Amino acid sequence: MTRLEEQFAFLKEIDREKFIGRQTYLTDGKRKENDAEHAWHMAVMTILLSEYANEPIDVLRTVTMLLIHDLVEIDAGDTYAYDEEGKKTQHQREEAGADRIFGLLPEDQGKMLRELWDEFEAGITPEARFAHTMDNIQPTMLNAATEGKAWAERGIHLDQILNRNKNTADGSETLWKYSREKFIEPNIKAGKILK
Amino acid sequence: MTRLEEQFAFLKEIDREKFIGRQTYLTDGKRKENDAEHAWHMAVMTILLSEYANEPIDVLRTVTMLLIHDLVEIDAGDTYAYDEEGKKTQHQREEAGADRIFGLLPEDQGKMLRELWDEFEAGITPEARFAHTMDNIQPTMLNAATEGKAWAERGIHLDQILNRNKNTADGSETLWKYSREKFIEPNIKAGKILK
Repeated sequence: MTRLEEQFAFLKEIDREKFIGRQTYLTDGKRKENDAEHAWHMAVMTILLSEYANEPIDVLRTVTMLLIHDLVEIDAGDTYAYDEEGKKTQHQREEAGADRIFGLLPEDQGKMLRELWDEFEAGITPEARFAHTMDNIQPTMLNAATEGKAWAERGIHLDQILNRNKNTADGSETLWKYSREKFIEPNIKAGKILK
Repeated sequence: MTRLEEQFAFLKEIDREKFIGRQTYLTDGKRKENDAEHAWHMAVMTILLSEYANEPIDVLRTVTMLLIHDLVEIDAGDTYAYDEEGKKTQHQREEAGADRIFGLLPEDQGKMLRELWDEFEAGITPEARFAHTMDNIQPTMLNAATEGKAWAERGIHLDQILNRNKNTADGSETLWKYSREKFIEPNIKAGKILK
């Protein structure tokens, strides 16, 4: 295959990200979002909210990381944040997905995206820390917009949310404070998040 | 409202882009894609295909343009590429949408996105030209992946496709050549695109 054929083989394959469902309701409270919609939303968020990062971040690098970070779920499926059984095999399933999916690309580009995904998973650069902040705040924003529907349906407890968000402040203290005060606390008061 | 409240008001509002349907089938040939999925796909394409731009482009600027260029359709709706009646009022409907939607943001960021949208619409910078190349090639790729289903269902003629693509080569001659040879010509031979 030519370089361009390899690139388009990858670009066609990743269309399948649009079929990977998540547990978050869209703002209409009816349909749940998929990975591609989630990635798009976080990319726009990053462009507009990067000014609140604890440390300066490279915006294009962070946006790219978020646009591709869920591609492994084409093979591995989405693992719900509170699915403790699924999380046991998540890493192994996702590594295999990364090998196959990024392997479709020309070597240099496959390596670039694989390294970005590894960087996201490791979560220790400023860009990866901010990307995780986005990945946590975007569904929290939508859950709050739907009056805590997803939390209430699953009987989610505050300690589960705090545990999931244990690194949210590492990317942006300002945004974690906002998320807690505007999205989480009103839903504790309303009984949608269990104490 | 504080700056952060304005930013989140915008970020919540744009969730509605996920409800704006397009005429392109996803690769499963069943469901049609929405604007958010389309924007995500083109952003990844831009990151991987910018090497084929006729002129050097600023990738972050082009990605941002593509991520936000359809937001006006939250108010104006999607106008199908071959809907000649709808196209008569498209500009006016979209300008009104841009005023309202970008107006939700703090002034500096609203201005930044509005200028990027205007730049996309004018189509005369290298970034805008490449963005239009992406906007034309992404649905062509999906239509080819579904064996021309969307073209065949609507009885689309080759001259309509060539007219829609009249500026595709302005962003990238290489990608337009690829699209013509790999996506369009096989579907003329297969009778999915009418001559």
